[in-house]
Amino acid sequence: MTVAERRTSPIRFEVLARAGEGSRARAGRLETPHGVVETPIFMPVGTHATVKTLDPDDLREVGATIVLSNTYHLSIRPGHERIARLGGLHRFMAWDRPILTDSGGFQVVSLGGMRRVTEEGVRFRSHLDGTLIDYTPEHATAVQEALGSDIAVCLDEPVPPGSSSREEVAAATERTHRWARRCLDAHTRPEQALFGIIQGGLEPDLRTSSTRAISELPFDGICIGGLAGDETPAQRRAALDVVIPLLEDDPRPRYLMGLGSPMDLLDAVDAGVDMFDSVLPARVARNATLWVPGGRINIRNARYLDDPRPVQDDCPCRLCRSFSRAYLAHLMRADEMLGYRLATCHNLTFTLDFMSKIRSSIRAGTFSRTMQELRATRAGTQSAESGLEGRVQSE
Amino acid sequence: MTVAERRTSPIRFEVLARAGEGSRARAGRLETPHGVVETPIFMPVGTHATVKTLDPDDLREVGATIVLSNTYHLSIRPGHERIARLGGLHRFMAWDRPILTDSGGFQVVSLGGMRRVTEEGVRFRSHLDGTLIDYTPEHATAVQEALGSDIAVCLDEPVPPGSSSREEVAAATERTHRWARRCLDAHTRPEQALFGIIQGGLEPDLRTSSTRAISELPFDGICIGGLAGDETPAQRRAALDVVIPLLEDDPRPRYLMGLGSPMDLLDAVDAGVDMFDSVLPARVARNATLWVPGGRINIRNARYLDDPRPVQDDCPCRLCRSFSRAYLAHLMRADEMLGYRLATCHNLTFTLDFMSKIRSSIRAGTFSRTMQELRATRAGTQSAESGLEGRVQSE
Repeated sequence: MTVAERRTSPIRFEVLARAGEGSRARAGRLETPHGVVETPIFMPVGTHATVKTLDPDDLREVGATIVLSNTYHLSIRPGHERIARLGGLHRFMAWDRPILTDSGGFQVVSLGGMRRVTEEGVRFRSHLDGTLIDYTPEHATAVQEALGSDIAVCLDEPVPPGSSSREEVAAATERTHRWARRCLDAHTRPEQALFGIIQGGLEPDLRTSSTRAISELPFDGICIGGLAGDETPAQRRAALDVVIPLLEDDPRPRYLMGLGSPMDLLDAVDAGVDMFDSVLPARVARNATLWVPGGRINIRNARYLDDPRPVQDDCPCRLCRSFSRAYLAHLMRADEMLGYRLATCHNLTFTLDFMSKIRSSIRAGTFSRTMQELRATRAGTQSAESGLEGRVQSE
Repeated sequence: MTVAERRTSPIRFEVLARAGEGSRARAGRLETPHGVVETPIFMPVGTHATVKTLDPDDLREVGATIVLSNTYHLSIRPGHERIARLGGLHRFMAWDRPILTDSGGFQVVSLGGMRRVTEEGVRFRSHLDGTLIDYTPEHATAVQEALGSDIAVCLDEPVPPGSSSREEVAAATERTHRWARRCLDAHTRPEQALFGIIQGGLEPDLRTSSTRAISELPFDGICIGGLAGDETPAQRRAALDVVIPLLEDDPRPRYLMGLGSPMDLLDAVDAGVDMFDSVLPARVARNATLWVPGGRINIRNARYLDDPRPVQDDCPCRLCRSFSRAYLAHLMRADEMLGYRLATCHNLTFTLDFMSKIRSSIRAGTFSRTMQELRATRAGTQSAESGLEGRVQSE
């Protein structure tokens, strides 16, 4: 019996309501050492221990209850041991609510130049200075323990779901399982939760065996990895419809990594997912795209230069309650940092408000109707946008 | 009798206390259409209708009671007529406190490529797209009326004080006087104050005649121009000691354009100046220099990477109350926008707090002692820094 098998979970997850009516959507409550998170939830991404352009007050104002930070980036700069000496990640970034750190697997595989994956781990060159780095399950676990996040995630080996061969997917999935056990064995911090990651690409049988392999282990939550990449929405949904039924009686939260466009979030909630993260809302904001109920606004369009209206009527965000479209259009053209911050505040407010509407409707037993209404407004962006952006889990 | 000579001032200035003891420092109260400003005051600069990296809540939090915005930049982008259609500059930038707009003279003379100064005005090419622009006293006045600032400033022809010949200074000074009268004649907005600008370089007799010429006209306030450039602090003080005694019985506020380092501000207050502006505190902040009572901190220095202390103990700013030097050092190295904003919040809080200390001491009759103490701490930067930066009145 390993340490992991004996441990008591530092988090508590409770399903409060189920949508029913043919939907697997559910509303829940996740208690963590730094506070409660209502699910389904979207986590803004703070790659360098800051959600780009925002401060912690902004994050609270947009409605964030939990943020994700990137293990790989922080381990390289400023260094996880430095953050530990400074009192941990919460104190470092002055965020007193829950933090989930990702495993680093996606970044290591996507950012690392000259990488080589072996059974031991991943050897690659730092994206900053080219230093050779050995990233192993044990190292990823130690980094996250040093950071002191509420929820740590196992190192995995994700592969592009739509463009990988069955052999590649199978090998990466099997290795992910072995690494998951090594992460569990390496993990020692009792007040930190640890989530395992299901792989299996778009192959139903591999998804099935991966779901079984990961859910058998004493993780505190289950990540669904290897999606939100180059697959189609239908392929993603098919994979979820393999995974989620197998977890029907599993009491743990389900987290789909890297998904961020509102319509994609809605569909994954319907499939039974509880947690999400992506840089998408913030990144498109910095590129001058504002999400609104009718679709989206590209504020660089000349028509907005004289538009005195807010970006979205009745939006409570810092942008919409004080400023016109014309002012934001001016700030973007003048490359003023305030513009990027205001646009980010808006898109994150939009996204978190969208999730809040979904939660309320599940609890009220009206999810099916709300889903129809939200789809009808074509809120925010379609899958096409997240597809173009690829999986965007750090920046 | 021109319109200007008949007008009633839309602002009211009252001297509340004088330092005495050989100092000409004074504490005053300036009432404007958008609120009261206590003097001596420092005005943060919002070149593109935003003080770089800050929003209006940040500005209130750092203690700003009035901001300066740049007439020239706004006239080119987004355009003063557009801002007028959108309800004026206050509404455009969501700043409900006083705004002073500069004349554009400094920018026209320093930024304009291929400029040609004639009696009519300045013809130059836009720094954005090369368009030919005729900038005249009448145009500068019309632009500021369209912006709707509380205080407008006459178009002048500044020349570098330390490196211009007497003939150049004399010609520019005489032209500035003629343009001042044209601005007065052109000005029609009764709720907007208009300030005239004294020139005269470092020549005592030209400063004297310019002070007399400008103070004879019915302006609402007196700017002291052509300083905060390439002169030494001693040369600047000598020029002020010519100008200010001539204004001894003048009831209007005195505004020295373009000065921003704390020691320079202190000396100019001692000489009898009431109002200041500069981009310096914000610009050096974005370059990672933080002003503190003991001097300054370059947060890019490696020693701060592990420093858990705030930049300045007991500082109430957004940076110091939540974050360590180590976190700011990390943000700057990662080129994260939050770092530039936090550093700007700090330097502006420092500067405005410095001015507040000066005001209190004048009212309490302890200015001389406070001046000695502030000089002893070598607070912030010395003239050398503002000299290196040159006159920095827009960005």
